[in-house]
Amino acid sequence: MDLEKELLLGDKRAIARAITYAENYPDKAINLIKKLYKKSGNAFVVGITGAPGVGKSTLTDKMVKELVSKGNKVGILAIDPTSPFTGGAILGDRIRMQDLSQNPNVYIRSMGTRGHLGGLSKATNMAVKILDISGMDYIFIETVGVGQSEIEIVKIADTIIMVLAPGMGDDIQAIKAGIMEIGDIFVINKSDREGADKAVIELRMMLELSEKRKWVPPIIKVIAQENKGITELLNAVFKHKTYIKDSGELYKRRLENLKTELIDIIISKLTRDILDKINKENLQKNLDKIINKELDLYSFTEEIFNEYFLTNKEVYYDK
Amino acid sequence: MDLEKELLLGDKRAIARAITYAENYPDKAINLIKKLYKKSGNAFVVGITGAPGVGKSTLTDKMVKELVSKGNKVGILAIDPTSPFTGGAILGDRIRMQDLSQNPNVYIRSMGTRGHLGGLSKATNMAVKILDISGMDYIFIETVGVGQSEIEIVKIADTIIMVLAPGMGDDIQAIKAGIMEIGDIFVINKSDREGADKAVIELRMMLELSEKRKWVPPIIKVIAQENKGITELLNAVFKHKTYIKDSGELYKRRLENLKTELIDIIISKLTRDILDKINKENLQKNLDKIINKELDLYSFTEEIFNEYFLTNKEVYYDK
Repeated sequence: MDLEKELLLGDKRAIARAITYAENYPDKAINLIKKLYKKSGNAFVVGITGAPGVGKSTLTDKMVKELVSKGNKVGILAIDPTSPFTGGAILGDRIRMQDLSQNPNVYIRSMGTRGHLGGLSKATNMAVKILDISGMDYIFIETVGVGQSEIEIVKIADTIIMVLAPGMGDDIQAIKAGIMEIGDIFVINKSDREGADKAVIELRMMLELSEKRKWVPPIIKVIAQENKGITELLNAVFKHKTYIKDSGELYKRRLENLKTELIDIIISKLTRDILDKINKENLQKNLDKIINKELDLYSFTEEIFNEYFLTNKEVYYDK
Repeated sequence: MDLEKELLLGDKRAIARAITYAENYPDKAINLIKKLYKKSGNAFVVGITGAPGVGKSTLTDKMVKELVSKGNKVGILAIDPTSPFTGGAILGDRIRMQDLSQNPNVYIRSMGTRGHLGGLSKATNMAVKILDISGMDYIFIETVGVGQSEIEIVKIADTIIMVLAPGMGDDIQAIKAGIMEIGDIFVINKSDREGADKAVIELRMMLELSEKRKWVPPIIKVIAQENKGITELLNAVFKHKTYIKDSGELYKRRLENLKTELIDIIISKLTRDILDKINKENLQKNLDKIINKELDLYSFTEEIFNEYFLTNKEVYYDK
């Protein structure tokens, strides 16, 4: 099949088609990945997260340009929480990255939240595999680090860069979102602004208060707009890459992520199946009873389990 | 059993114990709710959400004080994304609400994100039922509206209040988080600050651009600190309460929420069960193979399904 060959050759249109499958026709994407999975395994995944407005896109742009200038092939997945008001990706970011997207060794894709929870993380997982298969050396996942599900997505990465900017109240926000502890590298972007040194000191204190890890997350001051600090940041990424490979941490992380992904897949298969089998009329009748407080949800769930597995003449779930 | 009686009487310690069950011993909470569910059904649930720093806690505090002064019993669930740095609830909020918690007709509880995704929403659902059973007239759910999972939680509510403050960049944030469309009532808090009228105008424009609904969400200017606008806000809540009851919207919402909750429960039961049954040694061996690219995740998932259901001598999932 053409798509398979072209994907292995790193053809951009083939990558685009495969990721569209991942978003809209997961079964097609799964078949593709199953066939080509053994050709994957070279890509290193970098996650970039932080509150809106800290400059994640510019930072990604500059890092990727430097990586590409050194001969690397790079894929970028920009995760956008979709809203009916914006319809997905923010236009500004797209324009900013346009010259990068012209580069033959760079593939950029915006992915938006669609449908139910968990769907985006599944599609992102597939997109990472597809980019890996296509021969990327680095894959960047950029998310807005403001919620639990966004955190779940960035956790796919091997190295997680947490971006902050002085005087934006990001510190409080990051704490509230419980995201600080997942950072492997911290960036104070826009560090020519007032409060940058204060931010570094506060961050250092917080990191010292947190659970001790063998890897001490470095804090890098960057002015992405002016390309300042990008080389230092990339060196920190390389250092972390070496560290997690040598220490066995990379294996542990990938194992954990794999378990999460496995459970996700099992859950969605089972859910689809059980919902197909439940009698719709009976469901409606009982939900009405629950709303009218004539029946409780938990007893009804047990009923479903009993009925569902009795029709299969096999009770596999016994309380 | 004492706990049941005390809970029905609205005893605070009984409520606390029951919610602790919901968080840590869900089976115990389920048994309790099953027994008492028919006694529930009076509470109206108000969700309050918005970015960090917009003043949700103060707003809740003032609204609840006014409701209580009119003879209502109120429960408050403050949902805090937990972080190792804060250990859950933010101390300031707790102190601020202290005099409210002394009131015999108010019960306040902080609930933090624990363990895996979805767990908090399940515990919150149970806590709402427990508060309803304990005789509350109103239940407030306060979440930080920054992520998909936080949005899922506030959706439990019958009326959703979206709080903004002028000049905090909340507008962009709210759009990015895709949360605007779920608000039934919008509050511009700290409306003595510069930019309040601009915020109202922008918000009105956005609401007009969005999908037309029969209920036009009002925008209420409030200065919660000074207790200004609280009565107007509560009147908007009462108006929305009447509207959704009369229009059948309340039934629809509760039905949707019930379906979501039902699926959640089914999924977690099935997941627990299937994970218990998978051979641990075999799992580890195959996950290693996947990491080494000798096997792909999707083929392994199919293997699990085949093996799992063959041991039950019944294939209920056929691709």
